[in-house]
Amino acid sequence: MRIGILGGGQLGRMLALAAPPLGLTVSCLERTADCPAAAVAPVTVGDPADPAVLADFASSVDVLTYEIEGLPEDTLAAVAEHTPLRPPLASLHLASDRWDEKQLFLGLGIPVPRTARVDAAEAITEALEWWGGCVVKTRRGGYDGRGQAVVRTPDDLPAAVALLAAPGGCVAEELVAFTAEVSVLGARGLDGAVATWPLARNTHVDGILRRSRTPAGVPGDLEVLAASYLRRLLDHLDHVGVLALELFVVAGRDGPHLLANEIAPRVHNTGHHTPEACETGQFEQHLRAVAGLPLGSTALRGPTAMVNLLGELPDAAAVLAIAGTHLHLYGKAPRPGRKLGHVTVTAAGEAALDERLAALSRVVP
Amino acid sequence: MRIGILGGGQLGRMLALAAPPLGLTVSCLERTADCPAAAVAPVTVGDPADPAVLADFASSVDVLTYEIEGLPEDTLAAVAEHTPLRPPLASLHLASDRWDEKQLFLGLGIPVPRTARVDAAEAITEALEWWGGCVVKTRRGGYDGRGQAVVRTPDDLPAAVALLAAPGGCVAEELVAFTAEVSVLGARGLDGAVATWPLARNTHVDGILRRSRTPAGVPGDLEVLAASYLRRLLDHLDHVGVLALELFVVAGRDGPHLLANEIAPRVHNTGHHTPEACETGQFEQHLRAVAGLPLGSTALRGPTAMVNLLGELPDAAAVLAIAGTHLHLYGKAPRPGRKLGHVTVTAAGEAALDERLAALSRVVP
Repeated sequence: MRIGILGGGQLGRMLALAAPPLGLTVSCLERTADCPAAAVAPVTVGDPADPAVLADFASSVDVLTYEIEGLPEDTLAAVAEHTPLRPPLASLHLASDRWDEKQLFLGLGIPVPRTARVDAAEAITEALEWWGGCVVKTRRGGYDGRGQAVVRTPDDLPAAVALLAAPGGCVAEELVAFTAEVSVLGARGLDGAVATWPLARNTHVDGILRRSRTPAGVPGDLEVLAASYLRRLLDHLDHVGVLALELFVVAGRDGPHLLANEIAPRVHNTGHHTPEACETGQFEQHLRAVAGLPLGSTALRGPTAMVNLLGELPDAAAVLAIAGTHLHLYGKAPRPGRKLGHVTVTAAGEAALDERLAALSRVVP
Repeated sequence: MRIGILGGGQLGRMLALAAPPLGLTVSCLERTADCPAAAVAPVTVGDPADPAVLADFASSVDVLTYEIEGLPEDTLAAVAEHTPLRPPLASLHLASDRWDEKQLFLGLGIPVPRTARVDAAEAITEALEWWGGCVVKTRRGGYDGRGQAVVRTPDDLPAAVALLAAPGGCVAEELVAFTAEVSVLGARGLDGAVATWPLARNTHVDGILRRSRTPAGVPGDLEVLAASYLRRLLDHLDHVGVLALELFVVAGRDGPHLLANEIAPRVHNTGHHTPEACETGQFEQHLRAVAGLPLGSTALRGPTAMVNLLGELPDAAAVLAIAGTHLHLYGKAPRPGRKLGHVTVTAAGEAALDERLAALSRVVP
């Protein structure tokens, strides 16, 4: 089976590496030939947003999937009539619109932070006053902290107001005093079967994921709850493939609970530990799902952590000299803040994992 | 670092898939463009035995390694003066000559089955009479049971005698009444560090590996002994990369002991379970070694088995529907007896592994 991936970044690269053992053929559609996937799979150079380019690419494969978001939905809808698109357009749309996303969360009984559509400076000021602080986000197109402005004092207002001109407008969300950021990833097969991985606890700096760790160290009932939220979304969307749901853990009178933040309808940075740390990794699982193959076990083999390599490359030998490290470079040129790779660390126990992470922190800039 | 692999079969394919995460670039030299590695790495089409072709390929990479044997040693020696060859020529030579191999085993204190050079029908008859049965093997060029003839009765003599004309002649080995066939794999780094994997117990049918299983179910002192044999070979050869040593377990008055059969100076079919079942897989480990990177842990994560897919392809969905299966297809067209792929099975315990293998046996032809 020929699988066409829209996008050829590091996610496409890692999907492409998981395909040959399964007997699947992968190709990518990407704007530039010099992309991470190019070293491991054929890349068709072209703009996925161009209807003719997309139709041409689609006709060369049996099924389409994507590793990027922000794709033109009209164009995709036309193409999907002839070539199956997995995950479906509904999932892609939901992830592209922060307001629709929140509305669906609520509709499915998934709690969210207080959220309002804002279209004027006064509305942001109100949000600041009512909630004691808010984050203004463009409804569309934001990622890795871009298209967001945190408002804690009136001094923060101008940066937030500047976002209001963005196409689609903005939403304001209360600033959540979370005790942890976590994500739950899972996949849904073509047959409707669902398999979810254990939660990852995530650490973001300036909106960019720095590291994640599993087990997440949250009560077991929150693990179950997060998985049930994810399952509701997967089933509602008739999703096929991997879906990631990011959540806040917040303290409450009756114990900690969860507030949903956002989804990504694809393999996700907070699931990068799964190939080594779980029975089945997210890249293989996504391919299994889109190819109509049965899903694999998501059981965790032991404690694990993932550390992103941002901006500059570490000495590979120094990383690999630390026990339990698994290096994943993306073949990208260093640039400040750029995701260049990640290191997954595995260990038999939490204490050993802590030691290995401490050693790694002396090597990774 | 650019690594050139001589050969582009399934071993080259799996090496190539392990390279990009480590930041290594791989290319293969293979006689035909339609080879398993071609789907995952650039393949230079040419005969590695052709001095000009080999020199040209070597000049395009930083280090040479190989996934095939039987390469012309003179040609390689000339090329290795300019481009490092890892593993070294000495390892390749040893694996290519059954007599020299046995002599070195003995020189390093590694017991072997009784062996004699034979150059006439009478010598084979003597071996049959003295040992009660023997296997005649061409000194050079045999693999997967080819170039071998078992002699249990005088009726078996003609097939064995026919081998005597082979270039390099033949050896006769006593027929070993083994209780198990096992292999120990390990790697030696550029810095001389050695890491060995736990033994695999192997089942051959008609000289071709059908399946392997780890733990091998042999006494712990034999595990230690096998690893010490391998280490002697690795150090003596100044080997860099993975080395496999196949052994017989034989019953003795003082308990079971080991007799060395043969080596392979490369990644090996009996190590195919290591990527999923061990902390570091043989393909990554081999690349780490030849690239001068530190070796990774070879710790076993749990019981595992590997089943070769020979001659015909199973239904991928049926294989993947069994818990703990990891499918590896090589992209080869089915042909009777041909190695088309393998399935690694992992489980938390031996009983679960047995169940999964029983299920797999109903799906794999």
